[in-house]
Amino acid sequence: MAEPSHPAGPAVLGVDSGGSGLRLAVAPAAAPHARPETTYASDTPVRTGERGIDAHHLLAQLLPAAETLRQAAGASGFAAVCVGAAGMATLGQELRSVLPQALAEAFGVRRLALAADAVTGYAGALGQRPGVVVAAGTGLVALGADPASGDGWRRADGWGHLLGDCGSGAWIGRAGLEAALRAHDGRPGGSPALLRAAEERFGPAGGLPGQLYPRADRPAVLASFAPCVAREAAGDPVAAGIVREAAEHIADTAAAACPPGTGRTVALTGGLFRLGEVLRAPVRARLAARLPGAVCAEPEGGPLDGALRLAAALAADAVRLPVDGTLLRIVRHGG
Amino acid sequence: MAEPSHPAGPAVLGVDSGGSGLRLAVAPAAAPHARPETTYASDTPVRTGERGIDAHHLLAQLLPAAETLRQAAGASGFAAVCVGAAGMATLGQELRSVLPQALAEAFGVRRLALAADAVTGYAGALGQRPGVVVAAGTGLVALGADPASGDGWRRADGWGHLLGDCGSGAWIGRAGLEAALRAHDGRPGGSPALLRAAEERFGPAGGLPGQLYPRADRPAVLASFAPCVAREAAGDPVAAGIVREAAEHIADTAAAACPPGTGRTVALTGGLFRLGEVLRAPVRARLAARLPGAVCAEPEGGPLDGALRLAAALAADAVRLPVDGTLLRIVRHGG
Repeated sequence: MAEPSHPAGPAVLGVDSGGSGLRLAVAPAAAPHARPETTYASDTPVRTGERGIDAHHLLAQLLPAAETLRQAAGASGFAAVCVGAAGMATLGQELRSVLPQALAEAFGVRRLALAADAVTGYAGALGQRPGVVVAAGTGLVALGADPASGDGWRRADGWGHLLGDCGSGAWIGRAGLEAALRAHDGRPGGSPALLRAAEERFGPAGGLPGQLYPRADRPAVLASFAPCVAREAAGDPVAAGIVREAAEHIADTAAAACPPGTGRTVALTGGLFRLGEVLRAPVRARLAARLPGAVCAEPEGGPLDGALRLAAALAADAVRLPVDGTLLRIVRHGG
Repeated sequence: MAEPSHPAGPAVLGVDSGGSGLRLAVAPAAAPHARPETTYASDTPVRTGERGIDAHHLLAQLLPAAETLRQAAGASGFAAVCVGAAGMATLGQELRSVLPQALAEAFGVRRLALAADAVTGYAGALGQRPGVVVAAGTGLVALGADPASGDGWRRADGWGHLLGDCGSGAWIGRAGLEAALRAHDGRPGGSPALLRAAEERFGPAGGLPGQLYPRADRPAVLASFAPCVAREAAGDPVAAGIVREAAEHIADTAAAACPPGTGRTVALTGGLFRLGEVLRAPVRARLAARLPGAVCAEPEGGPLDGALRLAAALAADAVRLPVDGTLLRIVRHGG
């Protein structure tokens, strides 16, 4: 806010590419914590093809948007860039081969960080402090680090809705729908309240399979029922049990990814925690039992903030988070 | 076996159409329990299209095969036919409109039963006795009936791998893979034994999501791990707990579909029970607690036997199982 609109020092560029679109921000390298004055957001997600994340589709949006931001910020170029992307670890091979040259040619960029979105999420929430960040929405993953230890990233869960993502939106919604259909059948563990809620949302129970299985976005359909489960938890013991079990899974996942030692910070990020205290309170209680030496803190910022922070750290040769070549890769280009 | 190869009395035709293909059998109307002398089996499943199960694709196989069986049995025609098909209740509209006329023209059939495969499974396992049949493979559904009550079919579960099918092959396999990945992450509830088994079967844990999520047959992939879970149950407490919980779900589902009263028979059918006593024994134990008045019996036959039995009952005007127009529909054609 207090920054001049034409920063005197060098600028850095942060990029956050995910399922909901592409976002860019430029900030002074010396003050990445300040709200960036110049940002770009598009709701067109970068395509993923047979060769992974489509680097040329990304660049077609990124280069002109970054140029616009550069001009608006009055910067001559970018001292460093950090690109955070969902799927970077497994689908980022084309980004790794194409981006360094393209950004060097367009903006003279010589320092580039390529990060998984979980890493930019970590840096946004905790900076470079030791701890663990839970990212929870439709899915759920925890990422932990202790920069002082020399160890790599510690990851737990994030296996998707069939193999894990325990406690996620899809997990809570799925458990709620199972409880609804148990009530429909007269099986144990059923919840008439959740059956009513499910039929209000999806129509008669018999039509539920036909509304779910043909969809490509089944995890999102399941997760769309999670707010109903959280709402019913106030008066329905089955719904309350589902939310309580989800909270236990979330805390267990955080504990598994938390680096050993004391003074660790735990941050809960992602849309799932908008369910509110009905979920947050039992997560904190379970965390206090599982990680007695840790502090639960509000995340300082989001993944775009994290990308800016990492770019600024890279510009200052001060990256301390684990650089493992997969979740976080640094490319120094030219002399 | 003791039947003459050219039965003196009228014959009946049973048809079983499912995911693994099409099977037909002809038997004397008076002795449908006898092993049929003449059967046809094809491993080409009947297609399902936008209008549901493709009646013309079914007839293209059924009519010539039935004619061959008719001639081999020395029958002049069929006194009654029963067609059992997976998806009959929800995808059988074209069968219901096309089959009566086609079978009347080809074989003079005036009595036709159209049944869901769960109904032919019931009739094959229990005939027309009151009780409940559990059909368990990749999925799981229980169907119960009490012909003397005048009530309809009682169904429990069968909601598919995301909404239910609790205790099924997909359920056991999924729970086993989750336990494997919990061990991988260091989360509670993990099983190192199941992690070893999963990596033997699917390769390194990190590649598991990529092997599962892109597949169209995800429930079958999950179910393919169920035998490993059953095998590990001998020595691993987590695997043993999964199998025990599956057995409880199976018994609970059977109990929910079982008609009230005493003297009910429970039959366990389907490939899942080939896992053996490791699953069967705890199912029986839980059933004894949930349904103290019921008897657990071996199924007398399979769905093709059930189709023959229903056709014979229809020829004798002796169908007592619930005729509800959906799971079981009877069409009388012509005068």
